[in-house]
Amino acid sequence: MGPLRSLRVVAGGPVAPQAALLASYLGRIGGYVAAAQSRVINAGKSRHNEDQACCEVVYVEGRRSVSGAPREPSRGQLFLHQGLCFYYWGLFDGHAGGGAAEMASRLLHRHIREQLKDLVEILQDPSPPPLCLPSTPGAPISSDSSHLVGPQSCWSSQKEVTHESLVVGAIENAFQLMDEQMARERRGHQVEGGCCALVVVYLLGKVYVANAGDSRAIIVRNGEIIPMSREFTPETERQRLQLLGFLKPELLGGEFTHLEFPRRVQPKELGQRMLYRDQNMTGWAYKKIELEDLRFPLVCGEGKKARVMATIGVTRGLGDHNLKVCSSTLPIKPFLSCFPEVRVYDLTQYEHCPDDVLVLGTDGLWDVTSDCEVATTVDKVLSAYEPNDPSRYTALAQALVLGARGTPRDRGWRLPNNKLGSGDDISVFVIPLGGPGSYS
Amino acid sequence: MGPLRSLRVVAGGPVAPQAALLASYLGRIGGYVAAAQSRVINAGKSRHNEDQACCEVVYVEGRRSVSGAPREPSRGQLFLHQGLCFYYWGLFDGHAGGGAAEMASRLLHRHIREQLKDLVEILQDPSPPPLCLPSTPGAPISSDSSHLVGPQSCWSSQKEVTHESLVVGAIENAFQLMDEQMARERRGHQVEGGCCALVVVYLLGKVYVANAGDSRAIIVRNGEIIPMSREFTPETERQRLQLLGFLKPELLGGEFTHLEFPRRVQPKELGQRMLYRDQNMTGWAYKKIELEDLRFPLVCGEGKKARVMATIGVTRGLGDHNLKVCSSTLPIKPFLSCFPEVRVYDLTQYEHCPDDVLVLGTDGLWDVTSDCEVATTVDKVLSAYEPNDPSRYTALAQALVLGARGTPRDRGWRLPNNKLGSGDDISVFVIPLGGPGSYS
Repeated sequence: MGPLRSLRVVAGGPVAPQAALLASYLGRIGGYVAAAQSRVINAGKSRHNEDQACCEVVYVEGRRSVSGAPREPSRGQLFLHQGLCFYYWGLFDGHAGGGAAEMASRLLHRHIREQLKDLVEILQDPSPPPLCLPSTPGAPISSDSSHLVGPQSCWSSQKEVTHESLVVGAIENAFQLMDEQMARERRGHQVEGGCCALVVVYLLGKVYVANAGDSRAIIVRNGEIIPMSREFTPETERQRLQLLGFLKPELLGGEFTHLEFPRRVQPKELGQRMLYRDQNMTGWAYKKIELEDLRFPLVCGEGKKARVMATIGVTRGLGDHNLKVCSSTLPIKPFLSCFPEVRVYDLTQYEHCPDDVLVLGTDGLWDVTSDCEVATTVDKVLSAYEPNDPSRYTALAQALVLGARGTPRDRGWRLPNNKLGSGDDISVFVIPLGGPGSYS
Repeated sequence: MGPLRSLRVVAGGPVAPQAALLASYLGRIGGYVAAAQSRVINAGKSRHNEDQACCEVVYVEGRRSVSGAPREPSRGQLFLHQGLCFYYWGLFDGHAGGGAAEMASRLLHRHIREQLKDLVEILQDPSPPPLCLPSTPGAPISSDSSHLVGPQSCWSSQKEVTHESLVVGAIENAFQLMDEQMARERRGHQVEGGCCALVVVYLLGKVYVANAGDSRAIIVRNGEIIPMSREFTPETERQRLQLLGFLKPELLGGEFTHLEFPRRVQPKELGQRMLYRDQNMTGWAYKKIELEDLRFPLVCGEGKKARVMATIGVTRGLGDHNLKVCSSTLPIKPFLSCFPEVRVYDLTQYEHCPDDVLVLGTDGLWDVTSDCEVATTVDKVLSAYEPNDPSRYTALAQALVLGARGTPRDRGWRLPNNKLGSGDDISVFVIPLGGPGSYS
């Protein structure tokens, strides 16, 4: 019997283009999640699946004015002032303990809701966002503050800020506040470890994909693959990490060098000239090896084996406030970023069919499955069901997870091509972009 | 009579796919440069054209061994050990004085040659570059040093380094050494101001385009546009600048804030919540205005009016070691980077026709000319000449420069669409990728 692993299949509900359709989807989304979740025993790196998932419809009520009554329309809008709804899916791939992933799955969407509260009125008003809000949340927005122009020549007019960039900023700040909450509560509430976070917010016709870590999201649309995230690893973030080590050498504790070498320098190589690159370089050059080059490099290794400070293989995510370099007190957190990259996809720009889906997966999926293989599975599984059968998306999520795990053979769990299946936790969300009921 | 400006038309020679053809192109390249250079009187920002250009064929001799004799083939190669040639084109757009651009046009290719000297043997050897070179330049390369593997688990094998990445590293370091030389010699040799640098190196079948500043390069191939550079401005480098200001607040001298606001904050707005973004954000959010937010923002303005420290509109280039914030002693140089981004184009992967060209231009061209308009001009001008007439490239460079300048009308120099022509210096290189004589 090969190693036993846990797996989670989570298929999300269809994205609704109109907030008015909210009620009819809420149950279905819940149903999807419950129906598709499954788990097998695990004997890998840890005893439990450290992935967590969350799928919610979140209502954002605008802030109330000081008197407690709903705010009056104050900027001449015609619309009725009401709250906003967003659909939310989150995948949290935990490491070094499940506490951070569990906490993020419970709370991150609440932080997003909190950040959006100030924007409820603004996002529903087609005019550009006001430059200033009153100091008291809930007080009427003064219209004259948005027309002030600075006296400096490089500001001939004030910079234009879109509604979309406000939602992006709200999600970015929500990640930071979630991370700060983990730092505050780590002792009292056993928030062990950290987690990668991949989150989708669907709001007012646009899909926001926010990623911090090495999970990934792609859209498969009419067979075409549209990447919706990139991974943040020691390799992809090498220059950011090296720059921080260069500008703040105290963070390296005298144990690490910010320079990169193709492998660790050995004492007998002192005085020779070895290949290296620094924070400014994408190419390589030779430098004479000096004593401090014998320190361990801040960034080392390649691919899945790349590490920051010889310890961690992802460079963005939530938590990890207690993470230290092995047999040292040197904290790693300053090199990790909690900020996501947010990509925006405008759902209204294209008429989606029931086979168009957004696929989210933790690295357990993507380590052994290419984008093209996912697209092939999307086509194969969905075409076996009627377009209006909602269980097709659950079946697709299951097929992706089971395909990445492989099947047990005499030498471990194997994929059809005889390569080893993923030994990691595997979680997948399938979100239909034009599925049954999403347009009516 | 409208304002008078200077212009420079420089058409480069064809790229030779084989270094053996060197001799036959050298004269032609020189001829192209001389033939197409022209100048009109200038009455813009400065009295002289601050652009400089350089076009050279550079021979790189390998380092000699300590005995003075050419190095013996030491790694079992079959090839005859000989020097390398590269073709070189450089555009240098000066500001605040012509000294830096003039110095870069004389010396940058020599720094590149110096950096390549160690690589002459390595680049001609198809095996991977050695990890180590001996401490004495010119001593034989020991073959066993390249097979050492470190003991750490994240280095299961040493990182592979390509020949191409060595050339990239050589160009990157050459830019840095050029900048350091300017810093050393600025007093003795009147190296005033700074310059953007856009450089092309053609070596062993590959075209390396290195850009530091707001000049641009595109390839027009069979009518298709391939961008070969991106611009480095306060807008494109906002997050790098803000991060530096955040990590090293002493560089802001108490005069600037690293936060960005849509316009300068005014004292009466203290306590209100205004739109902002920090070094981690791509979106915008609201923050309560505090006293230190009243400082001038490190990055302000949009488009051509964007500035670092209210002073300079480009964020990469050479020189500027004396540049200070207006009416202050605060140096701006720490925020400017001398490192180029290097893009590589493999000339051997595609069979180029005589109409395929690489176009380099300073911002004087690109401010008023889109990529598509350049491609249209390429098509229009080249098709008016025989494919084997070398003067077609000179005519193309002239057409691009004159098109960007416009023609004098009653209200200034105007483009055919009646917009204002470029008031800046304009320099253009046209480099044929498959022109007459480049394949034989």
